[in-house]
Amino acid sequence: MTAVQYDVLGIGNAIVDVIARTDDDFLAAQKMHKGAMVLIDEERADKLYAAMGPAVEISGGSAANTIVGVASLGGRSAFVGKVRDDSLGDVFAHDIRAAGVTFDTPPAFDGPSTARCYVLVTPDGQRTMNTYLGAAQDLHPNDIDGDMMAAAAITYLEGYLWDPKHAKDAFLKAATAAHGAGRRVALTLSDAFCVDRWRGEFLELMRNGTVDILFANEAELHSLYQTADFDTALAALKAEARLAAITRSEKGCVVVAGSEVIAVPAAAVDRVVDTTGAGDLFAAGFLFGLATGVGHERAARLGAMAAAEVIQHLGARPESSLKQLAQQSGLVS
Amino acid sequence: MTAVQYDVLGIGNAIVDVIARTDDDFLAAQKMHKGAMVLIDEERADKLYAAMGPAVEISGGSAANTIVGVASLGGRSAFVGKVRDDSLGDVFAHDIRAAGVTFDTPPAFDGPSTARCYVLVTPDGQRTMNTYLGAAQDLHPNDIDGDMMAAAAITYLEGYLWDPKHAKDAFLKAATAAHGAGRRVALTLSDAFCVDRWRGEFLELMRNGTVDILFANEAELHSLYQTADFDTALAALKAEARLAAITRSEKGCVVVAGSEVIAVPAAAVDRVVDTTGAGDLFAAGFLFGLATGVGHERAARLGAMAAAEVIQHLGARPESSLKQLAQQSGLVS
Repeated sequence: MTAVQYDVLGIGNAIVDVIARTDDDFLAAQKMHKGAMVLIDEERADKLYAAMGPAVEISGGSAANTIVGVASLGGRSAFVGKVRDDSLGDVFAHDIRAAGVTFDTPPAFDGPSTARCYVLVTPDGQRTMNTYLGAAQDLHPNDIDGDMMAAAAITYLEGYLWDPKHAKDAFLKAATAAHGAGRRVALTLSDAFCVDRWRGEFLELMRNGTVDILFANEAELHSLYQTADFDTALAALKAEARLAAITRSEKGCVVVAGSEVIAVPAAAVDRVVDTTGAGDLFAAGFLFGLATGVGHERAARLGAMAAAEVIQHLGARPESSLKQLAQQSGLVS
Repeated sequence: MTAVQYDVLGIGNAIVDVIARTDDDFLAAQKMHKGAMVLIDEERADKLYAAMGPAVEISGGSAANTIVGVASLGGRSAFVGKVRDDSLGDVFAHDIRAAGVTFDTPPAFDGPSTARCYVLVTPDGQRTMNTYLGAAQDLHPNDIDGDMMAAAAITYLEGYLWDPKHAKDAFLKAATAAHGAGRRVALTLSDAFCVDRWRGEFLELMRNGTVDILFANEAELHSLYQTADFDTALAALKAEARLAAITRSEKGCVVVAGSEVIAVPAAAVDRVVDTTGAGDLFAAGFLFGLATGVGHERAARLGAMAAAEVIQHLGARPESSLKQLAQQSGLVS
């Protein structure tokens, strides 16, 4: 059996976030649904970018943020995702490697440019996202080296991967390789509208055992089971999930582990600046906890701690060492 | 006579800042002189980038930052500088236009990529800069449309323009066009090492009347007159400058206007996060004040206010409306 080389390996869309502060009027004028992620084509991306204010570029991508969080916690991690060989692609590759993550996916040498997510942050700290998938669409099964998944305690996949054409096949190849080596596979549902697009397939992934660990926020869980009632959705989840973590913003999170349900409160924050990455960093802490065997409750507390760090500044990747924060909170020794 | 269309027009290197937090050990290991700007070639840029931590990309460039500051104060402004037609070039062009600045310089379609300044911010808020000039080197005299300078109350040039090969000629063409229309020309000395490289020519520009308004910080002034004593340097400056503003960090600034010397204190700040852009934004406030005729002391106070805003966050461009801040401070009505 392959030795574990990575605590967590993530596969996702390799994206650079283009973050601008805005107000509710701009969202209304652009007919945007606050807090949601929508996919846009290049023409729309160009128009939106021309209409937005000055921005800051920070590497992003949901699973990539999670994997950087795992590295910041001191975990061994790797990422698989597709950029173009352009300057924003260089930025993405530099930032994830500089964070200590193994990133070996070769860039695309032609086709669309590196993916961008236009993140509009309102004064309440909420983020509304418009994603141009660009080169991320070109993640193919042949970008998946099964030996890497075999060497990862957990392979983590983002639901957004269901949107690009070939990424779904890459996802399934990776899950098969992970399970073939006796490893676990985790999935985040990513976004309520993403669940709307792929509900049947996501449920099937959970039911047929492709996915062992599920991450969702309340809105995504409600969308998955098409109910507005949290307890109804949770009961449905309990009936079929092996292990799931449901994040509930300032209400903390709920871990469902077989018949056991554990509620963990959110970590205190001074001021919410930008909620981008809250779910991604929760997943980082929880996955790191699982991979290092600390138990579900402590794993959830690590997730809450990591999420609290990332919402107190602009951008979806930690600015402080999560390992040091975890040591200071007594969550790791 | 051409009507005034712009309060301030800036010409400078069009640069995207790549900002990373670091520590003094990294600067020492990289043999960097803290607080200085050095020019690096592409090979060194690649090596440095590989060695630095995760970064944030924010549009920069000294004169460009100043011009964005003028726009933020409510002034009419324009910028001339060269990017490549690559993704970071798009970022630069978007950000400066989104700030309300006229920017019409066509990008280069071949040659080196858009210029980057690797900004290393230490915990004390100081920035150490390594600039790869890239496409900015290709600013040519034919990028200068003299009608624009004729329509600008003040044309503002950065000393860094003396480094790229053809930019010096562009600079002189712009100054001639401005003076031909009876406008004023301002120059910032940019950096003490830049003064070291071009001392004789900078002094000549001031002495032969190419430059009407001079900006410098203490270190640059000391370098210009090759003295470690501020009063000696100031006396030399008084003997030959028509109008000069010398910034002295937390000690505020000194305006030399003929025989008159006015000292203005620095504006109070809660916490210095990143000093990048302090001098650029001082120039923005001072130039806006001059162009709108508020008098030297109030112009210097506008400069101090703008500098105080920019050092309280990462990046060299204002995040808040400087016009609103100026109104709140009673500096403009």
